[in-house]
Amino acid sequence: MKALVQTGPNSLVHREEQDPSPAAGEAIIRVEAVGICGSDMHAIHGHDPRRPVPIILGHEAAGRVLTGKLAGRRVAVNPLVVPADCPFAREGRPHLSPRREILSMPPRAGAFAELVRAPEENLVEIPEAMPAAQAALAEPVAVSYHAVHHGARLLGRPLPSARCLVLGGGAIGLAAALVLLQGGAGETWLIEPNLARRATAARAGVALARAPEEGPEEGSCDLILDAVGAAATRASASRLARPGGVIVHAGLLPGAEGLDVRRLTLQEITFTGTYCYTPGEFRTVVRLLATGRLGALDWLETRPLAEGARAVADIDAGMVAAAKLVLVP
Amino acid sequence: MKALVQTGPNSLVHREEQDPSPAAGEAIIRVEAVGICGSDMHAIHGHDPRRPVPIILGHEAAGRVLTGKLAGRRVAVNPLVVPADCPFAREGRPHLSPRREILSMPPRAGAFAELVRAPEENLVEIPEAMPAAQAALAEPVAVSYHAVHHGARLLGRPLPSARCLVLGGGAIGLAAALVLLQGGAGETWLIEPNLARRATAARAGVALARAPEEGPEEGSCDLILDAVGAAATRASASRLARPGGVIVHAGLLPGAEGLDVRRLTLQEITFTGTYCYTPGEFRTVVRLLATGRLGALDWLETRPLAEGARAVADIDAGMVAAAKLVLVP
Repeated sequence: MKALVQTGPNSLVHREEQDPSPAAGEAIIRVEAVGICGSDMHAIHGHDPRRPVPIILGHEAAGRVLTGKLAGRRVAVNPLVVPADCPFAREGRPHLSPRREILSMPPRAGAFAELVRAPEENLVEIPEAMPAAQAALAEPVAVSYHAVHHGARLLGRPLPSARCLVLGGGAIGLAAALVLLQGGAGETWLIEPNLARRATAARAGVALARAPEEGPEEGSCDLILDAVGAAATRASASRLARPGGVIVHAGLLPGAEGLDVRRLTLQEITFTGTYCYTPGEFRTVVRLLATGRLGALDWLETRPLAEGARAVADIDAGMVAAAKLVLVP
Repeated sequence: MKALVQTGPNSLVHREEQDPSPAAGEAIIRVEAVGICGSDMHAIHGHDPRRPVPIILGHEAAGRVLTGKLAGRRVAVNPLVVPADCPFAREGRPHLSPRREILSMPPRAGAFAELVRAPEENLVEIPEAMPAAQAALAEPVAVSYHAVHHGARLLGRPLPSARCLVLGGGAIGLAAALVLLQGGAGETWLIEPNLARRATAARAGVALARAPEEGPEEGSCDLILDAVGAAATRASASRLARPGGVIVHAGLLPGAEGLDVRRLTLQEITFTGTYCYTPGEFRTVVRLLATGRLGALDWLETRPLAEGARAVADIDAGMVAAAKLVLVP
């Protein structure tokens, strides 16, 4: 098969690789679309020791099953693999398992390739007519969906009664705003300094996409999703949260500064991490995407997998207006 | 009346002061016992600009009502005063109101005195036979009770299924451990470096009172109460929390370091502030104390109010073995 292989920092080569072989309970999927994630970019830049080169990255895939009992079906691929006997899996929180694996991290190859192998139980069927690039959004949107509803549970109030705010208008932030709107949030703000990203968000249906200086007043937001995870956004979240409010932190940038621990304590503000999603949440998101409940999903752009190196360079150069870039093998 | 008046940093004078006059809806209480809180110590040291001198501190009071419809009754005094028309009060979270007042902070005098005035609705009746010093524990124990049950709500699992850990064996930490035991926590650890405090905790019923190096393994605690609030305890809590766990932060020391934001994010650990309690929680705690559900409450020591300056000096010198020192006018 052809695959986009990372061979060193900022070095991606489209070349022939050996076809994958399915293990018991696994299937081979012909990849029709695979998104580029911020964590792929981080690894491509050479900053992720968990992903030594040479490696095939990519974990946001959709395609057609070629082998096994689902052969012929089109699917979105849940890239998170957890042994069923893990205590966290038994508790319904497999994504927190210390034994979690993810496609694109050894020992599992990623989906920047014509073929990928994955456990059959990780494959979620999609309609024959659904564009593969939209189905490839299932993974990042599931991250946002989990972040929103994890935060809503901690808030302990219905979303329609809550003023909600998202910091950052990349794919995770934009999808979080769309999930909030779909969930009926009382008010949904998205704060993003970049004008083009605000325009994309507004077109996608986020009416309150605003520059940082045009945001809501301090101490007024019940639920805040920090989809950047930098010192500046943690500081903003600390200021903007209403007493008793919740901050959901989705970023993995280095550094831990910015949180106002004193205000969090005096105002009983909750700060929580979020990572991945459950299998049930992934399925819910596939259904929401397939039935148009999250809008037209036209905030993605497709490029050929063979031109992946160029696509990555364009993202680095800030030359991609779309919130998500999807590669097509 | 006689009162213990703070006249400057580390300067407390027992002297004659004007008797308080009740406003509408308020009563005068003859103080029978009033605890010394860490926040009193902070103000006495001259570090609380919200409490300018001269001032009567003290907000952990119990006594007998002298005026109004409750005259003759013995009560514990809830020192937190919030206007009923505050939106936070209407939501059932009056303790988060930006308009909250507390006895011992202007415009309200504290209870280091023979007499104190307080709203009648803040007075919770106690049995005639209940020692006043034990009733004066209602306020700090309500802080602990709220912290525990706020954290348990965020955890979203029953306490009997949870491994719980308290960092710090002062009054708040010890009371949190007792509240956890009363709530049936699966396991209740208390980590305290000071041997005398560990011995006090063990006598009070906390079997797993341990030195820091004898604590539970990393990543194993579902619910952690940080009753110290220092960089070192935030770092310990970050390490000890189980994936999906909850850290409740009760301290107001300066500084914000110690949190491992990356681990909190990757392991979906929740960090939440806690401050005060609701009126309902205060009443619950008075009932628990009065009926012996939190043990013998013999971890307090009483001193005469007239010797308050000496009592404070002894606390500063580390010469008080009891977890709580209570003054008797």
